Amino acid sequence: MKFLAEIEILPLKGLLDPQGKAVSHSMPSIGLQNVHDVRVGKFITMEIEANDHQQAEETAEVACKKLLANLIMESYHIRISLPQL
Amino acid sequence: MKFLAEIEILPLKGLLDPQGKAVSHSMPSIGLQNVHDVRVGKFITMEIEANDHQQAEETAEVACKKLLANLIMESYHIRISLPQL
Repeated sequence: MKFLAEIEILPLKGLLDPQGKAVSHSMPSIGLQNVHDVRVGKFITMEIEANDHQQAEETAEVACKKLLANLIMESYHIRISLPQL
Repeated sequence: MKFLAEIEILPLKGLLDPQGKAVSHSMPSIGLQNVHDVRVGKFITMEIEANDHQQAEETAEVACKKLLANLIMESYHIRISLPQL
């Protein structure tokens, strides 16, 4: 079966996020005074061929740990679903 | 009220995604043969001070359209929630 994995990767709380800070500081210049604490990370989607939901999730875990996320500086969150046709 | 906005930004389907392609090609080298169609975008979270859910969503829309997403090349998806304390 084909599963869709959606992975959100964010800099860990407490670590510097210069890109997020830059975006935060730009908000007033586009007229938004009510936006704070912007954090910028990565969003990654992929198709995973797997027998079941759990196997797809395990595959996505391996991809995150070995390739996609830097666990010293980033945390990740995985969502697995059946892709909408 | 404080809302949490989570924004997923992805390159439009059909457009080149060289970063996604590079990740796809790296999957076999970490032992994953069953991963395809990787797409890499941005994940952005922010706190929005707003009166209600709808106002928070409108603020996030403005941020996406004016600053965060390049609508010629990217699509975005906004989720609004009350932050977990």
